[in-house]
Amino acid sequence: MNPLDLPEGTLFGADNLPYGVFSTPGSTPRTGVAIGDHVLDLAAATGDGVHATGSLDAFLARGPQAWAAVRAQLVRWVTEDAAAVEPHLLPRDAVTMHLPFTVADYVDFYSSQHHAENIGCMFRPDSPPLTPNWKHLPIGYHGRAGTVAVSGTDVVRPSGQRKAPADDLPTFGPSRRLDIEAEVGFVVGVPSDGPVTVDAFAEHVFGVCLVNDWSSRDLQAWEYVPLGPFLGKSFLTSVSPWVVPLAALEAARVDPPAREPAVLPYLDDAGLRWGLDLALEVHLNGEHVSSPPFAQMYWTPAQQLAHMTVNGATLRTGDLFASGTVSGPGRDQRGSFIELSWGGAEPLTLADGSTRSFLEDGDTVTLTATAPGTGGGRIGLGEVTGTVLPAR
Amino acid sequence: MNPLDLPEGTLFGADNLPYGVFSTPGSTPRTGVAIGDHVLDLAAATGDGVHATGSLDAFLARGPQAWAAVRAQLVRWVTEDAAAVEPHLLPRDAVTMHLPFTVADYVDFYSSQHHAENIGCMFRPDSPPLTPNWKHLPIGYHGRAGTVAVSGTDVVRPSGQRKAPADDLPTFGPSRRLDIEAEVGFVVGVPSDGPVTVDAFAEHVFGVCLVNDWSSRDLQAWEYVPLGPFLGKSFLTSVSPWVVPLAALEAARVDPPAREPAVLPYLDDAGLRWGLDLALEVHLNGEHVSSPPFAQMYWTPAQQLAHMTVNGATLRTGDLFASGTVSGPGRDQRGSFIELSWGGAEPLTLADGSTRSFLEDGDTVTLTATAPGTGGGRIGLGEVTGTVLPAR
Repeated sequence: MNPLDLPEGTLFGADNLPYGVFSTPGSTPRTGVAIGDHVLDLAAATGDGVHATGSLDAFLARGPQAWAAVRAQLVRWVTEDAAAVEPHLLPRDAVTMHLPFTVADYVDFYSSQHHAENIGCMFRPDSPPLTPNWKHLPIGYHGRAGTVAVSGTDVVRPSGQRKAPADDLPTFGPSRRLDIEAEVGFVVGVPSDGPVTVDAFAEHVFGVCLVNDWSSRDLQAWEYVPLGPFLGKSFLTSVSPWVVPLAALEAARVDPPAREPAVLPYLDDAGLRWGLDLALEVHLNGEHVSSPPFAQMYWTPAQQLAHMTVNGATLRTGDLFASGTVSGPGRDQRGSFIELSWGGAEPLTLADGSTRSFLEDGDTVTLTATAPGTGGGRIGLGEVTGTVLPAR
Repeated sequence: MNPLDLPEGTLFGADNLPYGVFSTPGSTPRTGVAIGDHVLDLAAATGDGVHATGSLDAFLARGPQAWAAVRAQLVRWVTEDAAAVEPHLLPRDAVTMHLPFTVADYVDFYSSQHHAENIGCMFRPDSPPLTPNWKHLPIGYHGRAGTVAVSGTDVVRPSGQRKAPADDLPTFGPSRRLDIEAEVGFVVGVPSDGPVTVDAFAEHVFGVCLVNDWSSRDLQAWEYVPLGPFLGKSFLTSVSPWVVPLAALEAARVDPPAREPAVLPYLDDAGLRWGLDLALEVHLNGEHVSSPPFAQMYWTPAQQLAHMTVNGATLRTGDLFASGTVSGPGRDQRGSFIELSWGGAEPLTLADGSTRSFLEDGDTVTLTATAPGTGGGRIGLGEVTGTVLPAR
């Protein structure tokens, strides 16, 4: 019985084991597990047809006991029985990754205090940066599930209406303020027909992915009062191809920030430690431009899920809810270009000497993240990337 | 060759022929067409398995030519060849109706000027009733697709946070301001991977249903700034079981109201006549309380669809977009109780002498609608009904 040989310092060791959906030329999509620089064909390795369905949906719906059983098997194989998996490994750079699950409803929260304060200052300069409700409930809204796509999907610059405050009338054209939002997404496995309490979070949520909620700030600013963002966000939301199970994030769990004023009882998460110490990175054309820290998010995903369902709203397998832009207090910790460039007033200077406030055609943005693993090293959440194409 | 015998003055004659999904005890759900007081088992009558799938999805995806061919066949049968359908008719009151299609994304617009002005006065008393963008674009937002349910589904009173302006802190509990929104929904059949122009509306949209977008006004008022309605709307949205094809609404097409200021070119619908002369009715516990007129909606569904996709957002079969609350200028033409009771300041007096501002446990609300048919009489859109159950 031999352990599988893994690259030194890999972010995809036996304490990570994220799930995705891949294909090779001529094959239909099926479930894979990222291990080292390889992907394990899980249907072939286990003989379980649920992993040959082309999405994680049916596996997600099986629930925590089934998830734990597969994970335990994988850990045994990787750490003790390499021969069980070696025949079913493919080089990761030779496979095509697909959207890993069918997105049911997509909800986007707004749970970074630093982000909300930054945006509030810019969008509502005459009001306090945080609205009066912000510290009482995790503000969120529904996004467009049909335009969630896997990493690598091109970002066609959206067109739409915009009106600068000084203009009399709106004009139509390609967005001039195309932006990113660096976020973390949570994937629901087990449905619910009513409220999910904060302590039942892990009974329903399977795992975590990275999300880039591409945003058009000029469209958004003109349209969002009074019913919220719509076309400014609905053209594309990109997700990373690997869903890291909550079980891989045990070492990343931290206490969230203290809340003042105290939250209502249904949001009380004292002792649950569903803060997550994820270190995000934002790269523009290969250059590192920001390091948003997830551990400082004001609202945890357990609170977001409890809030989202407290009115009786049902949950479905494949529901995806995202954290909202992750921004820390430092300028180099902001998770969007509108913050990094302070609305264009303070453009970023890039390594080649050029400056950037918002995205230009041809720009590629890549988000990555790592977290402490249970093995003492770090694990990776993979990446979500996209390149901006000109407006059609 | 004999015409089918239909009840005098039926709203479901040969010029209507709406589609739904029904079952009988022991049968699996399948597609039916409402004809007179009966439902036609379309799979049995046509022998086409697409009508035995338990949803309209696959039929919707086939597109306008396929829709027209089935409709032409149905009209021939009903008007000339009763024997072809009579063996496949079941009494409509003996079948159970199901959600007729899989809701992909659900978008709710806000396109009645009277409604927007009424709500603006009540929610934002210190500002002009219409926001500056209202006459430039059809304001809309994404709702929760997973909680769209068929007529007859009970409405469990939602709980959540609310805060009256005079209160220091929010409180949690069952909503005290449970309301309806009488709307008309549009069902997308043919997908699109980019903008759908106003003149391509009927190439993508299959038909029309009634929508009651149940709303909790106290939850909504506290949560909706800055990202829009969320828990105040996400607990339930009810739709009528019969989808009336656009082809049945030819006689209902009217010019929309004049727009001032002029709209941007992508919203210019001059000559398209996608206003629809639908007469809605709101019934509370069997008593008629309002008659919202759809013909006066400021934005047409063709404009809504063009706007929703102008940024490149893709469309999927089963996308549902609703008009927003339909309200006319008269008090007895308002499509929500917050308007009918003016925020509770002017409660309705009912026939039994009781008064009502918002919904009470046990209340049943039923929306119905009719339109001019191509046969000279009227056609029906059926009804959407629901009864309020106490908070859990």
